[in-house]
Amino acid sequence: MSKIPTFLFFFFFSSTISISLSSHPLDPLSPAEFTSVQTAVRSHYSNHTSVAFHYIGLKEPPKSAVLSWLHHHTPSSAAPPRRAFIIARVNHTTTHELTVDLTQSTILSDQLYTGSGYPLFTFEEQIAANALPLGHAPFLESLRRRGLHGAEILCQTYGIGWFGEQGKGCSRIVRVMCNYLDGTVNLFMRPVEGIAVTVDLDRMEIVGYRDRGIVPVPKADGTDYRGSKQRPPFGPGVNAINVVQPNGPSFEIDGHRIRWANWDFHLGFDMRAGPIISTASIFDVDKQTFRRVLYRGFLSELFVPYMDLTEEWYYRTFFDAGEFGYGLCTSSLLPGADCPDNAVFMEAYFPDKDGNPQQLPNAFCIFERYAGDVMWRHTEAATPVTEVRRDVSLVVRMVSTVGNYDYINDWEFKQSGSIKVTVGLTGLLEVRGADYTHKDQIHDESYGQILSENTIGSNHDHFLTYHLDLDVDGESNSFLKSKLKTVRVPNRTTSPRKSYWIKLGSEQVDLIFVNPNKKTMVGNPVGYRLIPGSVAGPLLSDDDYVQIRAAFTEYNVWVTPYNESEKWAGGVYVDRSRGDDTLATWSMKDREIEDRDIVVWYTLGFHHVPCQEDFPVMPTLSSGFELRPANFFERNPVLKAYIS
Amino acid sequence: MSKIPTFLFFFFFSSTISISLSSHPLDPLSPAEFTSVQTAVRSHYSNHTSVAFHYIGLKEPPKSAVLSWLHHHTPSSAAPPRRAFIIARVNHTTTHELTVDLTQSTILSDQLYTGSGYPLFTFEEQIAANALPLGHAPFLESLRRRGLHGAEILCQTYGIGWFGEQGKGCSRIVRVMCNYLDGTVNLFMRPVEGIAVTVDLDRMEIVGYRDRGIVPVPKADGTDYRGSKQRPPFGPGVNAINVVQPNGPSFEIDGHRIRWANWDFHLGFDMRAGPIISTASIFDVDKQTFRRVLYRGFLSELFVPYMDLTEEWYYRTFFDAGEFGYGLCTSSLLPGADCPDNAVFMEAYFPDKDGNPQQLPNAFCIFERYAGDVMWRHTEAATPVTEVRRDVSLVVRMVSTVGNYDYINDWEFKQSGSIKVTVGLTGLLEVRGADYTHKDQIHDESYGQILSENTIGSNHDHFLTYHLDLDVDGESNSFLKSKLKTVRVPNRTTSPRKSYWIKLGSEQVDLIFVNPNKKTMVGNPVGYRLIPGSVAGPLLSDDDYVQIRAAFTEYNVWVTPYNESEKWAGGVYVDRSRGDDTLATWSMKDREIEDRDIVVWYTLGFHHVPCQEDFPVMPTLSSGFELRPANFFERNPVLKAYIS
Repeated sequence: MSKIPTFLFFFFFSSTISISLSSHPLDPLSPAEFTSVQTAVRSHYSNHTSVAFHYIGLKEPPKSAVLSWLHHHTPSSAAPPRRAFIIARVNHTTTHELTVDLTQSTILSDQLYTGSGYPLFTFEEQIAANALPLGHAPFLESLRRRGLHGAEILCQTYGIGWFGEQGKGCSRIVRVMCNYLDGTVNLFMRPVEGIAVTVDLDRMEIVGYRDRGIVPVPKADGTDYRGSKQRPPFGPGVNAINVVQPNGPSFEIDGHRIRWANWDFHLGFDMRAGPIISTASIFDVDKQTFRRVLYRGFLSELFVPYMDLTEEWYYRTFFDAGEFGYGLCTSSLLPGADCPDNAVFMEAYFPDKDGNPQQLPNAFCIFERYAGDVMWRHTEAATPVTEVRRDVSLVVRMVSTVGNYDYINDWEFKQSGSIKVTVGLTGLLEVRGADYTHKDQIHDESYGQILSENTIGSNHDHFLTYHLDLDVDGESNSFLKSKLKTVRVPNRTTSPRKSYWIKLGSEQVDLIFVNPNKKTMVGNPVGYRLIPGSVAGPLLSDDDYVQIRAAFTEYNVWVTPYNESEKWAGGVYVDRSRGDDTLATWSMKDREIEDRDIVVWYTLGFHHVPCQEDFPVMPTLSSGFELRPANFFERNPVLKAYIS
Repeated sequence: MSKIPTFLFFFFFSSTISISLSSHPLDPLSPAEFTSVQTAVRSHYSNHTSVAFHYIGLKEPPKSAVLSWLHHHTPSSAAPPRRAFIIARVNHTTTHELTVDLTQSTILSDQLYTGSGYPLFTFEEQIAANALPLGHAPFLESLRRRGLHGAEILCQTYGIGWFGEQGKGCSRIVRVMCNYLDGTVNLFMRPVEGIAVTVDLDRMEIVGYRDRGIVPVPKADGTDYRGSKQRPPFGPGVNAINVVQPNGPSFEIDGHRIRWANWDFHLGFDMRAGPIISTASIFDVDKQTFRRVLYRGFLSELFVPYMDLTEEWYYRTFFDAGEFGYGLCTSSLLPGADCPDNAVFMEAYFPDKDGNPQQLPNAFCIFERYAGDVMWRHTEAATPVTEVRRDVSLVVRMVSTVGNYDYINDWEFKQSGSIKVTVGLTGLLEVRGADYTHKDQIHDESYGQILSENTIGSNHDHFLTYHLDLDVDGESNSFLKSKLKTVRVPNRTTSPRKSYWIKLGSEQVDLIFVNPNKKTMVGNPVGYRLIPGSVAGPLLSDDDYVQIRAAFTEYNVWVTPYNESEKWAGGVYVDRSRGDDTLATWSMKDREIEDRDIVVWYTLGFHHVPCQEDFPVMPTLSSGFELRPANFFERNPVLKAYIS
């Protein structure tokens, strides 16, 4: 509520006052700007036209304009024009791409989209679709036959992918799957199996219904994860532990720009990608200047295919960013639990289907982390000397809860120049109800692991594909896939050794992004190294429709030339997509990537074989990757680091 | 100094008082016990015999005796007899293995060792060897020719490995390499190249000397890492940040036994291995009992081969545990820097060459870590519910500084049942002095990367091999290398999908250790999963003498049946070893490992291509592995976790 005065201020004066110091060309849309979009689009269409906003996001200014503004702007210099990109469904039949001038509140373009695939689901249409079964007589009959109460039913909308259908088979249909509460809040542990409800989202009606037969609904007992519902014995327990900063935090938040220690970056938000880190630069204490590292980094797509071929399951191959909106699924962070006591919180905004701005309180938290680790140390016994520096980093956190799964997203900035991206997987498994109460009863393919009576945790993967537009000390970068190669020593007259390795071709790969035009004093190209985390490749067949749509997961690393339009690894329209607009198809163009403005796409993969510890709620499983300076600095950039 | 009264108390009464409640059969030797060894061995040999203690450690009681004592002991029950295992060099000529009864202070056995290889270097002999060059006229002449002052020289002892030599070529010789201070404490950045000093440790004299020619000594400028020597501009800087526990820590230290949250384990110390975690059990809140996880875990060997074939470098293929003693190289931790403010410190003891106990103050720190992370969470939008638990873990830390490198060793216990082992690499690179001042001048093989003028950071590896005697819910365990296999769907009449994966054979491997005799209620074998960290395999040729000696790095995972004598992956006698007593040779026996008491050996590998950021002191590079419960518990063991 405290935000309302600001909001009004902006609303009335935004087109007349000069841009304040705290604004940045990559700022996400403000509430006033969402309203500006709404106003422009409403006046563009007649009052009788139904318009649903499926996506509203910043239409990024050209990179050159952003960089020029950043490097040359004075308090009075004009920022690049503020524009929005909109995807809307008009009259429940056509998809339109619009561009709106946010300052003038005018439509700059309106293009009909006629390709394959559909935009993100809106919350409102999911809510409407989820309510349909309870008004559908056959479903009520199915409940009655199972002895289930309608009041305890909660349903979810699932994208159904694409399996070669053409024409009308490709309409905007989804499956609505239902779960049961009745004594627990853990609906995902209580699936109602055997029923397939097919909904046409545009017509908002059930277009297919099938009840294959009754499968036991797993019991509620032991599934509730709320603290208030637990019974003794409790444990394990620990004493309170807190992080304190007697002199306050070391960072400053100026609008969306964050400055901390040697870092300066911009934190944006997008309803599809979630957090976006932009224009991240690091201060070089020796050169006394900021140097560029990352122009823009965000989660481009999150692909979660399940390995269950049951009729109600085979299509569960989710694209969480492109179908559900990874940003749209942001969970408000719980202070003191999701983030430590020294965290500062920031809100975000997204549009509802009518274009009204909705606030997401505590969408981000920003905090300094001191995990007890050491930044660098050395003990020299002979002299004697012991020098140790504590490692303090800055974390930007956001949690996206896409249905059952909670993804904890950390962008961590280290004073040593590293950017670490970590994803923690927690929340609830997607389980299948089954007849089995013991592993010994399983003789056919169960597609997963038995976790509890009547409960199969389905095998699945998580592939998080990041768009990382590295600008290592400038735009023109090259990618060096330097390999380590074993060298045989030809004969023992040269050396008693028979072998050693050099940087050059075998399996041991080193991934470095360099600026070929900038060298250190001793002649090394300045660079950043990508240090992969858990690497898991796709196991689906290349010709599987699912894998064709997710072909961007084929390699863990792709490098492409920067192209303003290439943001979404799975394509702009992912719901029911056919794989004709993915990172894999763009890359077939075989474009020049040497000494160019390049983008690296990194896929962090997990194969998840569930185990009983994941029931009824999963302990966090984390992995990530690191961008670490490699000859970017002349020497250790934290040699003179201090804590005051 | 405050430890002296305790020491004296033990000394006078240790053989008469009953073992206190705080003792454990796997306790490392107390100062009094070291003295007991010294007394026994001295009286065993005549006064005219020179005896140098190269290793004194606990002779572990049989595993069955330890387990029996642990499970059945009462305050009055007798512990297994306390014994020590000793490796001594007698009269500088022969290696003896002795067993001493610590209570009686008597020799139980004395065996002459006649195999290949030599024991750990003592500190004293390294100090004596390092001093020899400065009393050697040709060396002083070499210094004069280089314009270097003897007072600024500091030398180090390096093992020289084995390259097929037989007979006298295999005596106890080492190389002594010297570095230069003169304006810096960072001697490792100032190698004096071109000189090879060969020392016979038994005769303690120089037996070989060669000066190949002058190479510039890299300059001192910019190498000193002491805070007091830095000049402005300083930075980056952050505000103070501390961890506080208003109600104190949640752990109890009882002798060497540590109890925290749901964990109970023993922390030992060995001059060769460093920290040893034993008899780690976790309390199962559902079963209301402790369940066994890890009988014994420690670093068995650390192999660090350099990839530089220069005459003074080719033999640098260090075995840091077996040659230098990873425990012996323990650095005393600096409170408030090496460990957070809530840490508790513990000392350790090692024997000097004469068997006198020496204290290592602050050898370990133990602290609770709250890094701001989440143990588990879920937000349910529909109900609505948000439940989040903070992740608090317990860390046991020890730093081993083996010459230039500092290894930060963390054993982290998580309430969720995971044991995470993390190693942070920091300290100083081993650099080679060279003529080059710029990369453009390098046309021949430089064996490394130019880091500064006249400074080549040599390419090298780190392989840390851990001995992990898992006892998952009991001794009898099996190793399941379950693989994930792509399954083709035969035709589309079965499913629109063409593929999925199941747990069974491809490259994606899952490593699980199960107790085949214990099952969960729904029938899964109880197990623990090994989640590897950075996996780097050896790049040296199999027939290289270096690799023959380090054949235990050939695979990242080995499983062997428990054998009391198989502790050191590179063999008991590693200095000048010939590879005839390694994990690779033991494994040729092809012993039964199913449903047996098995040991897993895991190798954590790093290929290190140095970069300028590593100069003059390296920012910490971390990796590790995790042992994570997999159907060990019936359900999430931290569902009812709390913070009080």
